[in-house]
Amino acid sequence: MNNLHHLTQLSHLEPAVGAPIHNATEFTLVDSATNVESATFDKSSNDFGQAEDPGWWMKFTTLHGGKQQGSQLAIIDNGAIQFGVSPTRGMGITYFAVKGNEPFPIGWKSPIQEVVNPSFVNLESRGGLGWLDGFGEWLCRCGLEFAGEPGVDIFTTDAGGTSKVNCTLHGKTSNTPASRVTFTVGDTAPHTLRLRGTVCEYSYHGAKLRLETEISTEPGSLWLEVKDVITNVGAKPQEFQLIYHCNYGDPILEQGAKVVGAFKHLQPWTDHAANSLKGWETCEAPNADFVEQVYLAEAVGDGQGRTAILLQNAEGTLGSSISWRTDSLPYVSIWKNTVARADGYVVGLEPGTGYPNNRQVERQLGRVPKLMPGESREFSLRFTVHPSAISVAQVREQIEHLQATCECKIVPTSLKSELQA
Amino acid sequence: MNNLHHLTQLSHLEPAVGAPIHNATEFTLVDSATNVESATFDKSSNDFGQAEDPGWWMKFTTLHGGKQQGSQLAIIDNGAIQFGVSPTRGMGITYFAVKGNEPFPIGWKSPIQEVVNPSFVNLESRGGLGWLDGFGEWLCRCGLEFAGEPGVDIFTTDAGGTSKVNCTLHGKTSNTPASRVTFTVGDTAPHTLRLRGTVCEYSYHGAKLRLETEISTEPGSLWLEVKDVITNVGAKPQEFQLIYHCNYGDPILEQGAKVVGAFKHLQPWTDHAANSLKGWETCEAPNADFVEQVYLAEAVGDGQGRTAILLQNAEGTLGSSISWRTDSLPYVSIWKNTVARADGYVVGLEPGTGYPNNRQVERQLGRVPKLMPGESREFSLRFTVHPSAISVAQVREQIEHLQATCECKIVPTSLKSELQA
Amino acid sequence: MNNLHHLTQLSHLEPAVGAPIHNATEFTLVDSATNVESATFDKSSNDFGQAEDPGWWMKFTTLHGGKQQGSQLAIIDNGAIQFGVSPTRGMGITYFAVKGNEPFPIGWKSPIQEVVNPSFVNLESRGGLGWLDGFGEWLCRCGLEFAGEPGVDIFTTDAGGTSKVNCTLHGKTSNTPASRVTFTVGDTAPHTLRLRGTVCEYSYHGAKLRLETEISTEPGSLWLEVKDVITNVGAKPQEFQLIYHCNYGDPILEQGAKVVGAFKHLQPWTDHAANSLKGWETCEAPNADFVEQVYLAEAVGDGQGRTAILLQNAEGTLGSSISWRTDSLPYVSIWKNTVARADGYVVGLEPGTGYPNNRQVERQLGRVPKLMPGESREFSLRFTVHPSAISVAQVREQIEHLQATCECKIVPTSLKSELQA
Repeated sequence: MNNLHHLTQLSHLEPAVGAPIHNATEFTLVDSATNVESATFDKSSNDFGQAEDPGWWMKFTTLHGGKQQGSQLAIIDNGAIQFGVSPTRGMGITYFAVKGNEPFPIGWKSPIQEVVNPSFVNLESRGGLGWLDGFGEWLCRCGLEFAGEPGVDIFTTDAGGTSKVNCTLHGKTSNTPASRVTFTVGDTAPHTLRLRGTVCEYSYHGAKLRLETEISTEPGSLWLEVKDVITNVGAKPQEFQLIYHCNYGDPILEQGAKVVGAFKHLQPWTDHAANSLKGWETCEAPNADFVEQVYLAEAVGDGQGRTAILLQNAEGTLGSSISWRTDSLPYVSIWKNTVARADGYVVGLEPGTGYPNNRQVERQLGRVPKLMPGESREFSLRFTVHPSAISVAQVREQIEHLQATCECKIVPTSLKSELQA
Repeated sequence: MNNLHHLTQLSHLEPAVGAPIHNATEFTLVDSATNVESATFDKSSNDFGQAEDPGWWMKFTTLHGGKQQGSQLAIIDNGAIQFGVSPTRGMGITYFAVKGNEPFPIGWKSPIQEVVNPSFVNLESRGGLGWLDGFGEWLCRCGLEFAGEPGVDIFTTDAGGTSKVNCTLHGKTSNTPASRVTFTVGDTAPHTLRLRGTVCEYSYHGAKLRLETEISTEPGSLWLEVKDVITNVGAKPQEFQLIYHCNYGDPILEQGAKVVGAFKHLQPWTDHAANSLKGWETCEAPNADFVEQVYLAEAVGDGQGRTAILLQNAEGTLGSSISWRTDSLPYVSIWKNTVARADGYVVGLEPGTGYPNNRQVERQLGRVPKLMPGESREFSLRFTVHPSAISVAQVREQIEHLQATCECKIVPTSLKSELQA
Repeated sequence: MNNLHHLTQLSHLEPAVGAPIHNATEFTLVDSATNVESATFDKSSNDFGQAEDPGWWMKFTTLHGGKQQGSQLAIIDNGAIQFGVSPTRGMGITYFAVKGNEPFPIGWKSPIQEVVNPSFVNLESRGGLGWLDGFGEWLCRCGLEFAGEPGVDIFTTDAGGTSKVNCTLHGKTSNTPASRVTFTVGDTAPHTLRLRGTVCEYSYHGAKLRLETEISTEPGSLWLEVKDVITNVGAKPQEFQLIYHCNYGDPILEQGAKVVGAFKHLQPWTDHAANSLKGWETCEAPNADFVEQVYLAEAVGDGQGRTAILLQNAEGTLGSSISWRTDSLPYVSIWKNTVARADGYVVGLEPGTGYPNNRQVERQLGRVPKLMPGESREFSLRFTVHPSAISVAQVREQIEHLQATCECKIVPTSLKSELQA
C-alpha cells in the first residue's frame, strides 16, 4: 500500500532533516513529510542510564482549552533551567525559568497566557495588529518575509514590476506551525539536548523562506542556545527580515533594573522615547500609565564579531544576557514597556537584521537583506542566566570593555521624526 | 517533573474558578491553566442516585465534520427541556428545545447548521461581516470589546491620543473558545445543574475583558438562567458592549405571532423598519422577499428593576419569555427577519447594554459602558418556556401591567435617519 | 439520551446523502449531521473477496505536522492510478499519479507541499491572495459564490439594492471542509470505487450554495471521473462561478510539451500573454524568469456537446486529457506558468463557467450563471492518462477532428486591454 504522494513532492522544499548529529539518539516528534506526530513523548536522563547530577527531562504534549486548543508544547528541563518550545507557534520559546529552591522566571508574564494556536489568530485584524492577540512568548521570532510595523509595502520586483504587500505586524513565522521537529540526546557527556524544528513560510507566487532552528542546552547549565538557518528555497532572490523578540519580566525587571549593551549608535524610535533618552538604560517600576519607549542601537562586536546585551536587576545580583554575532544581527532594539503587571510589564531585548519599522522604511535605510535562490544565512544566539552578583558583574564588565573600544553616538532626535522630515 | 510554566502566569488573569458552590459536585471539563480537557463526559441523575422524576443527563463531546470539526458541545437535558452549550463558541447556547411527546425547538433554524469552529471563521471577511458565517446559535453574545455593526471606530484614548479600531460585526466573544468549563450538580434537591465557563478576550496593547458565565437549570423546570460577570482584568479603564442575541423560530414564531414587551421608548432602526412601524409587534409568515426590520426599545422595569419580553404564537398557546434587570441591560432590540425558512426564518429578542450600532455611534449616544481596572459587572437573564395558554397569559399580563406603569413613546422616524441628519 | 439538536436543523439544508447506489457497499467517513468521523479507514479488494487483478485499496487518514495538522486525506489506489482527495480542502484532489514499474505524477509539484488545513489560511491576506498559501492540489475547484481575481464587486441585488462583496482569489470552496463524505464499492464488476462528498458554502444574509461531488474510478482503469452537483439551497436567486483548476507538471510537462484543444475562440488574457500568442500551445522548459501567461478559450463541442483538452509531452508518448460537456462548462483557461521547479513549474487546464476575471467583470461579460431557489446544475469531467504514443495520438486526433468542425477565432489583443479601453 505504497503512498505515491511523494511523487509530487519537491525534495529541495521538504523540511530539511539537518545533518545527523554524531553520537546522539534522535526522536522524531513531528514530520509532515512522513505524517508523523508523537502523541506524547516523555523521556528523562533515567531512560538513558545517565546517572550524572542533575537529571534532565523532556516532555512533548498537546495543549487544551481556550485558544491553546491543539497547540503543541515541548518542555526541556536540564536540571538547572526549564523552557518550553511550541512547534505550533513557529518554534517560539514560550517560557524560560530557573530552577532551584526558589524557581523564578526569566521571561515576562504576558496577559496572553495561553500558547495560542495560530488557527485562532487573524494577523490582518486590528489593522494588521492581530499578532498581538497571540503574543505571549519569552522569545518569538519576527519575520521572515517581513517584520516590524504593519502597513502596505510597495516595491520594485526583480522583474522590474511593482508589487504591493500588506505587511502585518512582525510577520507570519511565529504563527506558522513547524513541519518537522526532532529531539536528540547526546550519547556521551555533556549529553547535549537538542530540539530541532523546521518552519516553512511558503506561498505560491510569493516568498519561500525556510527556517531551520536548533534549540539546545546541556544538563545542569544555565544557558540555552538558538541556532537558526534561514534559506530561500525559491528560485528568485528574496528579501527577509528577522528580529528575535526576547521579553523579560520580574524579578530581573524591577525599578532600577538596567540594560547594559555595547553600541556604536543609539537613537530613540519616537519623540516620546526621545523625551526619556537620559537614563534610557534604567527601568521603572510597573506603571499603568507608562507609554512604551523603544531605543534602536547598532551593536559593537569584539575581534570575533561577538557582542552581548544584559538585563540586570537593580542591585546587580540577578541578570540574563544574550550574546550573538554582529555580522548576521548587527542591530538590537530595546523595548521598554514597563506598564502595570496586568497589562504585561516587560522589557524586550531584540537583536535583529534591522529595526521594527515597516519593511518599506527598513529597505530605504538599507536594512533588508536579500537571499539568492538556494542561499542560506545562519544566526546564533546564546541566552545565559546570571544568578549571582559575581556572574552579573562578569558579563557586565565584558560588555563595558566592549563599549570602551568604541564610542557610542547617541542621536537625541527620534528616527520617526527624521523619517517624517 | 514539575512544570514551571505557571511561573509566567499572571494569577489575576487566570480563568477564574468562581466561588465554590455549596453542596454540589463539580467536574472540570476544560481548563487551559492546568491543560485539562475531558475527552467525553456523560453523566445522568442515575449516576448520582437521584431518583426524582424526571431524570436529567449531561453530555460533553467533540463534534466532527465540516466546519464543526473540533468544536466542543455540552448538552444538558433536565428532563423537561434540553439545550446545547458550545465552549468553543464562547459558551453560546447552540439550541434550546422542549421535550415531551412532541418535542419542539424554541430557537430558530439557522442555515448555518454546524457548530462552527472559530478556526474556520474570518471575522474580517465580507467587509467585517464574517461573523455571519458562523451564526447559528439560539443565544449568542455580541461583544465584549465591541458589538454591533462593523466599521472603523476612531476615538480618544485615556492617554489623550487617538486610536482606531476596525470593529467587526458583533465582536469576538462568540468566536472565542472558553478557557475553563466546569459542570456542577447540586447534591440536594432541586439538584441544580450548572455549566460554568470562562471566556478570555485578551489582547496585548488592547482590551482585556473576561466573561464568566453560569448557565443553570433545575431538573424538570421549563427555564434556564444565564448569569454573566464581565471583568476588566487590565490596568486601564476599558469600554465594553454586550448584546444577548436570542433567536426564535417556529413553532412559536408564525404568522400572527406577537412580541410583547414593556418599553419607555421604541424607535425603528431604519427607514424600512419605520415604514412597517404600525403593527411592528406582529410577525409574518415566512417570505423570501422580506427585508429585515429592527426596532430599538428602552425597557421599563418594575420596582425591583426587572423587566420581561415575550414572544408568543398567534393563538397565545405557546410562548417563550426573557426576564432580566434593566439596570445592567436597559435596552432591547427586536430583530424581525421573517424570511423564507431556507434563509433562516427568525425573530430576535436582544437585551443589551445598547443597540447594534457601530461602537462609535453608540458612544456618541452614551450607551457604551466603561469598566475601571479590576471592575466587574453582572448580568442575569432567565429564559422560560410557556407551553400553555395559561402560562402565556400569565407572563403577558405581567408585562402589560408593567407597560401600564409607563407610557411608551414611539418615535416614528428611524434612528438611522436621525444619525444621518 | 436522545439529542434534540436535530429539531433545529433545516432538513433541506442538510448535507445530501445522494441517491443510494445500487449493488454497492457504503461506508460513512465523515458526517456533521450525525457527528461521525472515521478515525482511520483502510480497505482493499481483499476485504471484499475481489480476486480480479489488479487489486485496489482505499485509505482515509488524518494528517499531521505543519499547516496540514488535522487535514483529512482519502487515498484511492485502483491498481493502475492513485489519487488523494482531501475532505478538509473542499474535496480537492491533492495528487494524481500513475503506477507501474516507474510511477510518475500527472499533477504538478507545488511549493505548497502540505495539505494545508483551511484553519491556517486567511483568504483575505495579501490583498485577497491568501488562497495562494494553500494552493497545492492537482485539481481544486475555484468558486462557488465567486472565483477569479480578488477585488470588490459592487452589484444590484434582486431586491433592487446595491451590495458590495470583497471577493478573494478563487473563492472559498477549496478551503471549506466537507460536511459529509462516504465511500462506496460496487458489489459486482467493475467494482466502481466512489468517494462522495458534500461541501456547504453557507452564510447568513449570503449565498447558500452546496456542492455534492462524486469522484469515481474503476479498478485497473487509467481514468477518474468528477461529477459535481451545485445547488442553491437558499430561497433567493444566487449567482455562482466554478472553475476546475487542474494543474499539470513534469514528466508530461516539459520543453516542447503541447496543449491540444478544440476552440471557437481564443484570446490572451494580458498583453504579456498576447506577446507570446504565436506558439501559445507549446510549453517551455522551467525558467526562473518566466512570467505567467493565460489564454482564454471557448470550447467546441461535438454532436453531444462533449469536448476535450490534452496536454502531451514533446514526443507525444505521454499525455493526460480532460473531457467534459460544453453546455455546463463552455470555457477553458490555459494557464502557463513554466517557472523554475522550485517555484512550481506548471501548466493549468481549467474548464469553467467562465474565465478567472473578478466576478464584476465576468458578470458584465455574461459569464456568471444564476441558480433559482432549489435549482441544481450538474458538472461532469473525466480525466484520463495516456501512457503511450498510440493513446496520445487517439485523443489528439479526436480533438483535431473536433477543431476541424469549427474555425478557431484567435483574438490577437488581450482581454485586459479591451477591458481597460
